[in-house]
Amino acid sequence: MAILEKINSPKDLNGLSMEKLRELAAEIRAEMVTTVARTGGHLASSLGAVELAIALHYVFCAPEDKIVWDIGHQAYAHKLLTGRRKQFATLRQPGGLSGFLKPAESPYDCFGAGHAATSISAALGLARAYAHRGQPVKVVAVIGDGAMSAGMAFEALNNAGQINQDIMIVLNDNKMSISPSVGALSSFLSRKLTGPFFIGLKKEILSLFSSIPGVGEDMVKIARRAEDALKAFFTPGMLFESLGFQYIGPIDGHRLEFLIPTLANAKTITGPVLIHALTRKGKGYPPAEQNPVRFHSPAPFDVKTGREIGNPSARSYTDVFAETLIQLAEEDERIVAITAAMLNGTGLDKFAKRFPGRSFDVGIAEQHAVTFAAGLASQGLRPVVAIYSTFLQRGYDQTLHDVCLQKLPVVFALDRSGIVGQDGPTHQGLFDLSYLRSMPNMVVMAPKDENELRHMLKTSLELEGPAAIRYPRGKGTGVKLDPILTSLPVGKAEILMEGEDLTILALGATVTSALQAGANLEKKRIYATVVNCRFAKPLDADLILSLAERPARIITVEENVLAGGFGSSVLELLSQKGVFPDGIKLLGIPDEFVEQGPQQMLRAKYKLDAAGIEQVALDLLNRPAQQKCLQRKKNV
Amino acid sequence: MAILEKINSPKDLNGLSMEKLRELAAEIRAEMVTTVARTGGHLASSLGAVELAIALHYVFCAPEDKIVWDIGHQAYAHKLLTGRRKQFATLRQPGGLSGFLKPAESPYDCFGAGHAATSISAALGLARAYAHRGQPVKVVAVIGDGAMSAGMAFEALNNAGQINQDIMIVLNDNKMSISPSVGALSSFLSRKLTGPFFIGLKKEILSLFSSIPGVGEDMVKIARRAEDALKAFFTPGMLFESLGFQYIGPIDGHRLEFLIPTLANAKTITGPVLIHALTRKGKGYPPAEQNPVRFHSPAPFDVKTGREIGNPSARSYTDVFAETLIQLAEEDERIVAITAAMLNGTGLDKFAKRFPGRSFDVGIAEQHAVTFAAGLASQGLRPVVAIYSTFLQRGYDQTLHDVCLQKLPVVFALDRSGIVGQDGPTHQGLFDLSYLRSMPNMVVMAPKDENELRHMLKTSLELEGPAAIRYPRGKGTGVKLDPILTSLPVGKAEILMEGEDLTILALGATVTSALQAGANLEKKRIYATVVNCRFAKPLDADLILSLAERPARIITVEENVLAGGFGSSVLELLSQKGVFPDGIKLLGIPDEFVEQGPQQMLRAKYKLDAAGIEQVALDLLNRPAQQKCLQRKKNV
Repeated sequence: MAILEKINSPKDLNGLSMEKLRELAAEIRAEMVTTVARTGGHLASSLGAVELAIALHYVFCAPEDKIVWDIGHQAYAHKLLTGRRKQFATLRQPGGLSGFLKPAESPYDCFGAGHAATSISAALGLARAYAHRGQPVKVVAVIGDGAMSAGMAFEALNNAGQINQDIMIVLNDNKMSISPSVGALSSFLSRKLTGPFFIGLKKEILSLFSSIPGVGEDMVKIARRAEDALKAFFTPGMLFESLGFQYIGPIDGHRLEFLIPTLANAKTITGPVLIHALTRKGKGYPPAEQNPVRFHSPAPFDVKTGREIGNPSARSYTDVFAETLIQLAEEDERIVAITAAMLNGTGLDKFAKRFPGRSFDVGIAEQHAVTFAAGLASQGLRPVVAIYSTFLQRGYDQTLHDVCLQKLPVVFALDRSGIVGQDGPTHQGLFDLSYLRSMPNMVVMAPKDENELRHMLKTSLELEGPAAIRYPRGKGTGVKLDPILTSLPVGKAEILMEGEDLTILALGATVTSALQAGANLEKKRIYATVVNCRFAKPLDADLILSLAERPARIITVEENVLAGGFGSSVLELLSQKGVFPDGIKLLGIPDEFVEQGPQQMLRAKYKLDAAGIEQVALDLLNRPAQQKCLQRKKNV
Repeated sequence: MAILEKINSPKDLNGLSMEKLRELAAEIRAEMVTTVARTGGHLASSLGAVELAIALHYVFCAPEDKIVWDIGHQAYAHKLLTGRRKQFATLRQPGGLSGFLKPAESPYDCFGAGHAATSISAALGLARAYAHRGQPVKVVAVIGDGAMSAGMAFEALNNAGQINQDIMIVLNDNKMSISPSVGALSSFLSRKLTGPFFIGLKKEILSLFSSIPGVGEDMVKIARRAEDALKAFFTPGMLFESLGFQYIGPIDGHRLEFLIPTLANAKTITGPVLIHALTRKGKGYPPAEQNPVRFHSPAPFDVKTGREIGNPSARSYTDVFAETLIQLAEEDERIVAITAAMLNGTGLDKFAKRFPGRSFDVGIAEQHAVTFAAGLASQGLRPVVAIYSTFLQRGYDQTLHDVCLQKLPVVFALDRSGIVGQDGPTHQGLFDLSYLRSMPNMVVMAPKDENELRHMLKTSLELEGPAAIRYPRGKGTGVKLDPILTSLPVGKAEILMEGEDLTILALGATVTSALQAGANLEKKRIYATVVNCRFAKPLDADLILSLAERPARIITVEENVLAGGFGSSVLELLSQKGVFPDGIKLLGIPDEFVEQGPQQMLRAKYKLDAAGIEQVALDLLNRPAQQKCLQRKKNV
């Protein structure tokens, strides 16, 4: 780490020779592999963007110039180059470095990120802000080819081209389908085409044409088109040129000797410019190069072999979901599956292997995924949209307007709902209960364990309208899986433990904690009724009302924001019926974003584990009953 | 109406001569103008799509073939041709025809619509569903050029091109910037290029190249590129070709003699095909041709002059918002404004005229609009996103992930919040309170009248984080406007009327109804406290708790869904503090979609007008207090 050790800010890159920069790239890769092998994290993308990070920081003067990285999981090298080398070991740990971009962490992270395809919109905003103030700040966005399939990237490109804003987009393209030979040819061409000589010549010709009265306008158009046609012959840049961008590329994104002069040339271009860099996901670490999908976001692994460390025995919710969906699809031809670029993450890779014609990976395009599913459902199919909770936020309107309004039977399998852990605030799935239950016609459920997930999937596929099943990230409880799937009655809860002292209404994975809390309380001779509510919507109104009328206290437990969540819906029900228990306490996430850290640590922090629920129960029982109703029983 | 009268289904178009079809187009236009002049509605877009509708129904066999219209405001001719001629007079009336697409209304409306850019995703879903079942159904989507700027249209095009699905997109392009000469030239070219001869030739050449071993693949690529380059020279179709579509056009969308053969030819093409038709917004009705923007969605008007009928005296919320924003921007250079294709609808046209460099119309691109605003705010500007409540649903994730998470001072001016009236369920602004209040850092307010809107706008622009102001569609109360703007204390409510019998916590425009209800109750010697809550978040906890502790009943009133809304947040507060009033009733929208109809009628239906609130108050006072707390006072 001889060179990296001396890089305390990007300014320390000045004067380093091309050879030293290459050595630096190798050191950065070694550091990333060592750290991520220990912490887990996003590896393959960041390995592919090492030279990009070096070249960008070599050519631009951050933090005065603004480099906006998309998502942030490609930005580890950027972190290492911008004064965070010593903290890098704390990556994704509580209080440590974020796995994504975070302005609070560093002035070099000029815009926060975590979800895909925000960088162009944000960069355009930054660039306009500086234009507004007349400050000559350069703004660059770095975006992956995957993110480029997201609609908002297109919206932003379209807008940037229209207002002709000075802005540079670096397209970090690690799509392996583009062959090296094309890249090599084009990088040669593009270096020549972007040089000041060519730019100057082009301008001269265009202004010459423009100056001819009458036909001038048309000639310029024809000249422009001739140039387009020429470029289209050599480059895949048509798309960007048609949106008003100057397109440069593709160039080899691992060759600093190409990258640096190209970026330096492009820096002098006015108007929007896009540089298309070809990179290799996992570059420089053979296991990741060979299996970039697994190394996209690996759990801790052995550096030598690349093998995962830890116990892969218990099955994850994702695995059980995938297996169950296959089982159901074997018997029902109408079942099809949709993912937005998360084939592996959602477990649909197994489904796609079994039913290639019935599986659709639409790319990072959640809006389309949802309405596409609605279209499928409208003609009698039974689409299952397998998606992370945090990413369905992108399809909010489509879920409401296209699915719920038409009451179409689309099933949303919401993986990684609740607290997701190390990915932190950009990825927590803590809002779905609130926003889904406010949508008419939507049925919202959460299984207490991976076995119940199986039955819920069957149940949801039998409904005549939309349904969502939310389940957590990670391993299940290890419960035995029922071989035969049965339908659950919609809107019916299940009493798991009975007691007179208080009622715990738990939803989803919190049921396990609630049961444990109930067992702990029992040892203190406090007897709780523990309910596995199963449905956040519709609620089991009869059961909840009957429990609320007993002289007991109620605790609701959910891994979701309290605002408008499951507990809130219980309150709505009670108020509607004019029934209130002696005391009620809602457990969930208060009005704040949840930071990164191990799931169990965060659950404890928000009293969503057994100890937390137990403590809240004791507090509720110790404090005076609903202040004005203490004598209630006697007066009735 | 000699011809239109005989068209009871699209099959009646069969055998009509080109001349008769042209006469039919004229009759349809006359019918549309007469009806919309009386009912109000979307006129200019539908006038521009008359020939498209005729040609599509002439060439395709709906309802077996599927024609998916985007949004639906261009589909009035489609409605007239598909058996709804006699009901057309009920357009946008309660129980009458929808102004958009609605499957429940007709089997010819094969997929519901209202928001922009859903048609391609939906059509792709339909097409895949039929492919899945091996049924040879043709699927067409008709989408406007405006909607094409929406990210989800791009997502869908990208996906359609990738899976190479048989599908036809008709791009209804009424952008007036495309000159007629280009269109004429290209329509000539495209007619020749789409004929079976050319398609056959192309296939032959490509398969010849493919058959050469070794170099075959490359030659095909080069041949394809040569073709692209050639086309790029003549057509604006690069964008679509690069996404894998066969591009045809542009053609004149008002010439049935071009449209019909082009559609018929294109119907035989396999894989995704896009037909680019140039149309004129408002075509055939001179006032609309001259001012297509005003006639996009006019109020009732005089057919002869095109002048609006009715009283344009009271100012709308939109007008007051726009004037106030200009007033504030005169004094604060940091203020900039953003709209997503609703320059006129949001009143920002006035702002853009006064501050052209500080106004951004990003097109139908709500996702980008929000993150672009976040980018501007991150560098110290004060962006105001002026947007309809129903359309901010498209930017849910960006609001949460880019604005709230970073606590950036973006102001959301949510026009048309609450019940919007005749536009119906696709356009009601009834979810924003629920989803915005669940986002940490967001301040949510609603003014009781247009004067308070002024002060709220000033207040929100002084905050250090995000804020949303929701206000209704239509005229204000006519209240006098304070010339001087003052900041309101955040999270503080205002008591407007005091009484001991009950408390009405009202938000936004419902405050006026609540006050009227309070006055009516007073005549019956029932004395209400009426609170203008102003903030849905943060709540005025002190005030609400103090009112809840009095021996009174509470009614909350909001024009929003009850699930997770303002009333729900009041319940959360009360439960958190362990305080419950004797009785509480939440007024708002129950768990259903709200149909079309006049705002006042719908407000009455949901008891959100003065009479409704009064009735609920009387019920609440007459029924036994919170069943178990009747003797409360005496026991304390």
